Amino acid sequence: MSSGPARGRFITFEGGEGTGKSTQLRLLADSLREDGLMVVTTREPGGSVGAEAIRALLVSGEVERWDGVTEALLHFAARRDHLVRTIWPALERGHWVISDRFADSTLAYQGFGHGLDPDVIASLYRVAVGHFAPDLTLVLDMPVEKGLERAGIRGGGEDRYERMGLGFHQRLRQGFLGIAASNPMRCAVIDAARTQAEVHKDILATVRARLPTP
Amino acid sequence: MSSGPARGRFITFEGGEGTGKSTQLRLLADSLREDGLMVVTTREPGGSVGAEAIRALLVSGEVERWDGVTEALLHFAARRDHLVRTIWPALERGHWVISDRFADSTLAYQGFGHGLDPDVIASLYRVAVGHFAPDLTLVLDMPVEKGLERAGIRGGGEDRYERMGLGFHQRLRQGFLGIAASNPMRCAVIDAARTQAEVHKDILATVRARLPTP
Repeated sequence: MSSGPARGRFITFEGGEGTGKSTQLRLLADSLREDGLMVVTTREPGGSVGAEAIRALLVSGEVERWDGVTEALLHFAARRDHLVRTIWPALERGHWVISDRFADSTLAYQGFGHGLDPDVIASLYRVAVGHFAPDLTLVLDMPVEKGLERAGIRGGGEDRYERMGLGFHQRLRQGFLGIAASNPMRCAVIDAARTQAEVHKDILATVRARLPTP
Repeated sequence: MSSGPARGRFITFEGGEGTGKSTQLRLLADSLREDGLMVVTTREPGGSVGAEAIRALLVSGEVERWDGVTEALLHFAARRDHLVRTIWPALERGHWVISDRFADSTLAYQGFGHGLDPDVIASLYRVAVGHFAPDLTLVLDMPVEKGLERAGIRGGGEDRYERMGLGFHQRLRQGFLGIAASNPMRCAVIDAARTQAEVHKDILATVRARLPTP
């Protein structure tokens, strides 16, 4: 028997503000590279030249700059560009791709957070992403107050999504947990309210169990 | 019997490059204002602060900058902002709104021109526009060579859509004529290969016949 080169795997990190996604993503990428894998790290919104230009429209400006439907359309436009220019070509080359956020964030933020009709998001997913989905989604979970405290310490200018109030962030957390509960084969919930090293160890064990390499 | 204030009417101009849409739009707006109507003129992509920012992503850069699905998502994001911020509020105030291009341009350019699945465009229309539609669409039609010659004379930097080749523009023309044939109650085809004054007279007669005012 012969087989073509293996397609890479697509892993996404999801979760609210301050849950440590970016740090844990880097630690996971380092560990997988030590295993000899080629790893591409990326983020949403963004991750390609076009998607970063769309990101600039999304992450700055007033909270009420865009209505919910417009915002969802922009997120899926950026996602489509990210898929076409970055994610799909890397997977074809056999690389593993790890993204800081993907489509679950749109459902959690715009759907659960802002009350946008989930059918709208499902329609846009079919148009922009089709039948593709992550091989594994790591949902980093911690109490909202703790995450916001961490995010507040971090500062920086891209904070439009962090200024939306505690109720919003609580709906967001429940949204992510609901998505994980509805998609148990794809998603794993990681308790992120532990030390960086503990969380990393848990993530690495989860990846090795769910996505075994030869 | 009593009735609330009349909602305004929404008129769109559609057609290929160089067919004279912008000029005829201005002439129509002037005539309707002389009739005592409040008229808002606008254009797509654009027509609101957010949509103009999205327009800047769409009309400049390389022909292959966006894949077809991404481009359609961006057009409908801009259209949604245009509707929410400009068109719907003006109609509610009783104003007439005339737009240089609307959703038929997405179907003609991305669908008929570039071969994007029309179901994708129909899905995006439902998400972004819903059950709303123009009260009257004026499709300005002329031979492709003549339109491109006029467009070439005009020059300017926003010419990404004008560099796509003769076959593309011929599919575009047939696309607009097909849309008009499929929607005879909403659309009127105007022979634009005549003098400016003749075309204006025809348009004004069409508007007065289709959208009578008290």
